[in-house]
Amino acid sequence: MNAYNQLLAHSKKISHFQHLASITGWDQAAVMPSGGASARSEAMAELSLHIHQLSTQPQLGEWFSEAETEELDNTQQAIVREMKQEWLDATLLPDDLVAAKSLAGSRCEHAWREQRPNNDWSGFAKNWQEVVKLSQEEAQIRAEHFQCTPYDAMLSQFEPGTTSASLDVVFADVKSWLPDMIDQAIAKQSGETIIQPNGHYPTHIQKSIGLDVMNLLQFDFNHGRLDESVHPFCGGVPSDVRITTRYDENEFVQAIMGIVHETGHARYEQGLPRSLAGLRAGHARSMGIHESQSLFFEMQLGRNPHFIQHLARLSTGRFDSQQPNLFTVDNLQKLYTRVKKDFIRVDADELTYPAHIILRYEIERDLMNGDITVSDVPELWNEKMQQYLGLSTRGNDRLGCMQDIHWTDGAFGYFPSYTLGAMYAAQFMATMRQSIDIEGVLDSGDFSPIFTWLADNVWQKGSLYTTNELITQATGETLNPQYFKRHLEQRYL
Amino acid sequence: MNAYNQLLAHSKKISHFQHLASITGWDQAAVMPSGGASARSEAMAELSLHIHQLSTQPQLGEWFSEAETEELDNTQQAIVREMKQEWLDATLLPDDLVAAKSLAGSRCEHAWREQRPNNDWSGFAKNWQEVVKLSQEEAQIRAEHFQCTPYDAMLSQFEPGTTSASLDVVFADVKSWLPDMIDQAIAKQSGETIIQPNGHYPTHIQKSIGLDVMNLLQFDFNHGRLDESVHPFCGGVPSDVRITTRYDENEFVQAIMGIVHETGHARYEQGLPRSLAGLRAGHARSMGIHESQSLFFEMQLGRNPHFIQHLARLSTGRFDSQQPNLFTVDNLQKLYTRVKKDFIRVDADELTYPAHIILRYEIERDLMNGDITVSDVPELWNEKMQQYLGLSTRGNDRLGCMQDIHWTDGAFGYFPSYTLGAMYAAQFMATMRQSIDIEGVLDSGDFSPIFTWLADNVWQKGSLYTTNELITQATGETLNPQYFKRHLEQRYL
Ligand SMILES: [Zn+2]
Ligand SMILES: [Zn+2]
Repeated sequence: MNAYNQLLAHSKKISHFQHLASITGWDQAAVMPSGGASARSEAMAELSLHIHQLSTQPQLGEWFSEAETEELDNTQQAIVREMKQEWLDATLLPDDLVAAKSLAGSRCEHAWREQRPNNDWSGFAKNWQEVVKLSQEEAQIRAEHFQCTPYDAMLSQFEPGTTSASLDVVFADVKSWLPDMIDQAIAKQSGETIIQPNGHYPTHIQKSIGLDVMNLLQFDFNHGRLDESVHPFCGGVPSDVRITTRYDENEFVQAIMGIVHETGHARYEQGLPRSLAGLRAGHARSMGIHESQSLFFEMQLGRNPHFIQHLARLSTGRFDSQQPNLFTVDNLQKLYTRVKKDFIRVDADELTYPAHIILRYEIERDLMNGDITVSDVPELWNEKMQQYLGLSTRGNDRLGCMQDIHWTDGAFGYFPSYTLGAMYAAQFMATMRQSIDIEGVLDSGDFSPIFTWLADNVWQKGSLYTTNELITQATGETLNPQYFKRHLEQRYL
Repeated sequence: MNAYNQLLAHSKKISHFQHLASITGWDQAAVMPSGGASARSEAMAELSLHIHQLSTQPQLGEWFSEAETEELDNTQQAIVREMKQEWLDATLLPDDLVAAKSLAGSRCEHAWREQRPNNDWSGFAKNWQEVVKLSQEEAQIRAEHFQCTPYDAMLSQFEPGTTSASLDVVFADVKSWLPDMIDQAIAKQSGETIIQPNGHYPTHIQKSIGLDVMNLLQFDFNHGRLDESVHPFCGGVPSDVRITTRYDENEFVQAIMGIVHETGHARYEQGLPRSLAGLRAGHARSMGIHESQSLFFEMQLGRNPHFIQHLARLSTGRFDSQQPNLFTVDNLQKLYTRVKKDFIRVDADELTYPAHIILRYEIERDLMNGDITVSDVPELWNEKMQQYLGLSTRGNDRLGCMQDIHWTDGAFGYFPSYTLGAMYAAQFMATMRQSIDIEGVLDSGDFSPIFTWLADNVWQKGSLYTTNELITQATGETLNPQYFKRHLEQRYL
């Protein structure tokens, strides 16, 4: 067997164990009783260790060197490129740094679950200091290898090919118009009447509507399921994609739109090229592209009134509602596009969301590059919140820099993916409109032309191309925030 | 680390991968969409291979030899004994025989799914011939190592310590009284009126009653769940036991009693010693002892009228039933103890069940020992069915020797476990009655004294003792079929 085929076989072997990790991970979040947690953690730690050992096996270095001398076509070269990238990611760090970071991260996250509600910044900072220090060490090692800034080295784990130099430009553009646009949108909406749901919306009915919506979005139930979990997610494997949502019986808005969002993630996974199954090149391109699909579903389709008409149709008469006009297209549209300056990112609307992200990006960038320290974070957060959303978080870190889980275990570089995703989604939609009558398709109830475009331009490409190549092939240009701006203007102004 | 501790660590490592196999196996049977099957099979095959490699790792032989020279207490000796037994089971057979048998078994089972409904004995016999041949080779190798008959070598995988010499004696006893007892019971029941369920019994109501029954049986929902699958089973791991049932909306009898049965298996698993978690010595003793617990719940408790009063109470008024007296203790008791001579083992009642087992035992014993051949099986089956139950299966192998899945993939030696379990259960109950007022406890609704007895005498023992030691410690004597006979006489005559 030549080195290329050795690499293929090894990659497929690893993917089998990753399959087990995905399914038992889903199980843990969606169905496992709490008493099963301790034995499960041990089993999953053993599995992680085994995957790590397979991923860093000594022969791999030789195989990569040899494979580079073998005659490979473009696809095969991309397969090796992605595999090698993953291997470098796995081998760059000394095992004791990985172990120390993992331990510090779990400890910090665990304590944070109590410290956050208690607004205990100084308690949190003690643990977090260690996480930041170890993450900086990690960033330094990655940066030396890839010859880039420490933050860019962290960012590239989630968004390979994206740099803070490019993000700085894109986000500077957004910052130049977003705060004004938010003010204008709020002013415009202030005169509107809106009917808030105020009844009992049983879980099994919400679920039944959710399943109808998934069918409308052509989720393949032969290769996936819908379940419940505290934190909604999309997991499983491409041949068996597990999405979850959370139901609140006091309203129906969140769960249904949460299902639309996760269905976007799921269809990307279900649409990945089967011919590359078990290979890194057959995985989703990046976190940002993944989020572009969920946000395409949630924001570009889901909040379009021509889509909302289906939500209205599927919801009307399903609940014992005493509120007339609650389920009209107009009212649902208002519910789903309400703009509000508020503290919490995960509850933020489409328009204010980028402000939450840019703030985090600027802080984590400076933190990883050593330009600021942990103790600077609360006041920086406060200043930026004032600047972007006019809100003070001084003395209220619970609603400020302690609100997210991401930083507690050192996932620095992840946040930009959310807003990159929103921008890619808008750019995809703008291109799609050149050949597809989106509203006509939405009215028809058969959204196939839209999904065919996404399958051809995104899903079927896996990771064969870099993000820039993918975006350029699909839309004729690299990331351009103007599409996002125009989308927001049309919806909110 | 001394060899004993090496063995401990290695065993726990293997158990982590077995944990993953159990949970993904449950997932496959209970929740996986069918399109996920192919990738899942590959992942699970990779996991099996990995477990096999760990279980047959070359150092193990040395560790076992060394550990035998180390100073170990009784528990530690039992831990090594069980581990070594498992290691021998895993290493005795050449890998190519294991692979060939697994392939022949899957092929035979797969074709059987169509051949059985078509009554295609000659088609089935062709594939089965190969399975039998490879099983005989397996039996031969095991027999040479353990110095016993080929059948006993197969039997010992499911019932270590039980021999066909002892089974011959026990089953000869049963055969001497069972056919007569069946006739008498049927004659006695022929005059009774019985109300068969004849309505619609929605799944969610059956499930809700099932959960109530599980609570009554003190199933620990912090360490387990109830779900649905085509073939009910008890899976998962001791800290997270997954039982399943199947609902038929035309009746409620099967699902509820199926839940009682699986809860018996589950409580055994939940009650295994935590201190031996991850060690073979902490597993259930044998298939027969496992079945003794499910049958203790199902037959000794579940069909006792003092238990049935709870089923009546929990079911009354839950369904829109138009049938008066359907849910009385008297009628439920009749439904649950109806005796009928019939062809299919899995549908058989408590009284005729042993006849089905003895027939299979006699045939598989002679087949493994080379005393009969595959082509003898249909007629032997017919003769024995005539003799034990007065039914002819000539020309009707669909309802005869082709009915079970067990033989299709070569699980010879498994069947006796069912009737051994029924006998052990009766013997446990007879002993328990010496110190516990069973009917009083059942009437009270708090069955704790019964479960405490089972926990002390069975569950907490894991596999620290041989089956004979376990039975003797618990009941003062080895297996004695008289308890089973007396139990049946009291219930059916
Ligand atoms: Zn998302
Ligand atoms: Zn059973």
